[in-house]
Amino acid sequence: MPVNLTAPNATDLHPIAGIRIGTAEAGIRKANRKDLTVVLIEPGAGVGAVFTKNRFCAAPVQVCREHLASGKDIRALLINTGNANAGTGEQGLDRARSSSATLAASLGLAPQQVLPFSTGVIMEPLPVDRIEAGLPAAIADAVEDNWFNAAQAIMTTDTVPKACSVKAQVGGVTITVTGVSKGAGMIRPNMATMLGFMGTDACVAPKLMQQLALELADASFNRVTVDGDTSTNDSFVVIATNKAGNAPVVSLDSTDGRALKAAMLEVARTLAHAIVRDGEGATKFITITVQGGRDTAECLAVGYAIAHSPLVKTAFFASDPNLGRILAAVGYAGIDDLDQTGIELFLDDVHVATRGGRNPTYQEADGQRVMKQSEITVRVDLGRGAATETVWTCDFSHEYVTINADYRS
Amino acid sequence: MPVNLTAPNATDLHPIAGIRIGTAEAGIRKANRKDLTVVLIEPGAGVGAVFTKNRFCAAPVQVCREHLASGKDIRALLINTGNANAGTGEQGLDRARSSSATLAASLGLAPQQVLPFSTGVIMEPLPVDRIEAGLPAAIADAVEDNWFNAAQAIMTTDTVPKACSVKAQVGGVTITVTGVSKGAGMIRPNMATMLGFMGTDACVAPKLMQQLALELADASFNRVTVDGDTSTNDSFVVIATNKAGNAPVVSLDSTDGRALKAAMLEVARTLAHAIVRDGEGATKFITITVQGGRDTAECLAVGYAIAHSPLVKTAFFASDPNLGRILAAVGYAGIDDLDQTGIELFLDDVHVATRGGRNPTYQEADGQRVMKQSEITVRVDLGRGAATETVWTCDFSHEYVTINADYRS
Repeated sequence: MPVNLTAPNATDLHPIAGIRIGTAEAGIRKANRKDLTVVLIEPGAGVGAVFTKNRFCAAPVQVCREHLASGKDIRALLINTGNANAGTGEQGLDRARSSSATLAASLGLAPQQVLPFSTGVIMEPLPVDRIEAGLPAAIADAVEDNWFNAAQAIMTTDTVPKACSVKAQVGGVTITVTGVSKGAGMIRPNMATMLGFMGTDACVAPKLMQQLALELADASFNRVTVDGDTSTNDSFVVIATNKAGNAPVVSLDSTDGRALKAAMLEVARTLAHAIVRDGEGATKFITITVQGGRDTAECLAVGYAIAHSPLVKTAFFASDPNLGRILAAVGYAGIDDLDQTGIELFLDDVHVATRGGRNPTYQEADGQRVMKQSEITVRVDLGRGAATETVWTCDFSHEYVTINADYRS
Repeated sequence: MPVNLTAPNATDLHPIAGIRIGTAEAGIRKANRKDLTVVLIEPGAGVGAVFTKNRFCAAPVQVCREHLASGKDIRALLINTGNANAGTGEQGLDRARSSSATLAASLGLAPQQVLPFSTGVIMEPLPVDRIEAGLPAAIADAVEDNWFNAAQAIMTTDTVPKACSVKAQVGGVTITVTGVSKGAGMIRPNMATMLGFMGTDACVAPKLMQQLALELADASFNRVTVDGDTSTNDSFVVIATNKAGNAPVVSLDSTDGRALKAAMLEVARTLAHAIVRDGEGATKFITITVQGGRDTAECLAVGYAIAHSPLVKTAFFASDPNLGRILAAVGYAGIDDLDQTGIELFLDDVHVATRGGRNPTYQEADGQRVMKQSEITVRVDLGRGAATETVWTCDFSHEYVTINADYRS
């Protein structure tokens, strides 16, 4: 059961002028489901993208990097579910290039103007024939008001489609941001990949797009974890179609830039949090804020040490306010000169540990009350600097083991 | 159920001349169980010790470091189970010092000649009165042939007492090495600590003892992991009583030094492996060898990435030869310039992946056969250097979640 997460209403997902989306049932792995998506981008749009840092990156990720490096305008995304085209060697690269080229030819584009994305089973050959056979139907289906179908068509073992849409004021003009994501644990038993796609009609200087993609990812998808495993296919793409009529945003540090980034970050975080809320076996959504660090790196090291500790995660599942496990995770996070007597720990509003030990006024019943909630904030103050970072995760349940121990059949 | 691990026979645990051990029922946490151990060391012995790197180290660890730093000969160990004296602040330090001083006074020693060790519940005050009241009985019980009782008296939630003893030839003389350990997951629901204590009657230059402790720990206790969580109390102590009559070992690189270290490493590894075999919920014992690395650090990074991946560990539990999960863990281990096309992967004798992709001759049935075993070796060849390292871990089962989600009651 996802944690406080329901499917969006299709009518709440505002179209983005200049982006048309089409889906089709290509029978890539299963019959009778939408599994092929094309995103068609009008000329004049800017695109930024970030990809997995896993050295075993999948073929489509390698092809995306090649196509982005060509410097040609990106005009289409080609997304399939059912097969990740990962661990597939030269043949996988050939098939990612081939399907991109087929879509490009249908649209009168150069192959490098198409970015391919795949998600699904790994280590199996991409059924490129089925993908190419499905393209005409997907192209014919393409309309601007189709984000909900895209959210469904990119799912693998997600239990809920993930999408979000906001409107905001940028330079006195109403702009729209809409996005979709998929993922539920970094790698499902035989499914791989977190994917995120966002569009806005805002006018943004092209040179800002890559910076925007990186900054959004760093504050959203790069701050969530289910089990610490990163996928071979993780991809996040941001498209600005420059249709809204606002004065082009030329800096993310300007008033307009901050307004745009805030709106886009709201969507990106909602999409990223949705992945955690739909995390494998998740029963709780945990926000971990580490403050008082010397720099971002040490705040993140502590945050992820807590977020990845199986002992902490099972304690959340059990609603057990187990201070020792959280403090022990802080202690092994890798800060060599950490002074344990400077550590404060809070569960929501409850001050559970002070100066590295149990807070004398702390009552177990108060910790227990917080731990029973479905949404919990852990706050650690390291007491040694001004940096603050937040990461999000879920608990670790029997269901996680059940899901991941199911044989791939 | 521990994996291929049974209790040792008391008669197989050879006494070490110069080390007497006594245990007592002090009622520290539960009645009617041995929970207090004293190890009494004759003058002239050398001692080396290594401790947790966790910055939240427990009071006894801090006191051990103080006492070792005093430079005085260590003449006794004081070990209690039932309470870890961790997260207990100044009071905890006072109590660790007080109980050490009481034992020292009984033996006519300086307080700094006693090393204290605690394991059990964390964040609760050490019942120092019960410990001190139990000391006379433990001292009265002290005899050389008592290692089996020590193995039992230091257990927390271990299901099997852990001990090992070997004899070896060093410089033409038969020497004996005997040790005990405890631990089952780095921190049980309310129990903390891995502890290991080893003695030998071999003659060893005092200056070598700390190096010996470090090298033994690095090749045994520092190469095993259950869940990646390190404890606040982890301690490992090596004692050489210099009674065997061999010419003193003055270098670990000499013929005698290598013979001694091999014997001691056999005991240390057996004790370390026993902790994994008795790991929380373990159903399989996994050896992970990473070869072809440029240096030790990158071999270990890859080994631990595999050993700590919940997805890999649940695949072991499910007997699922899921290549993708292992390769993905290799990919995110942090080797930035890793070439995935250089990677070879083996499960025991089965060559499952070559050049970073599925081996064309690999049959799923062969991988399945290996994964069903209770002991499995994963071998990864990075193809970029001459370094090799091995780590040991267990799988990740429903039982792990059950054990760790049990509320502390």
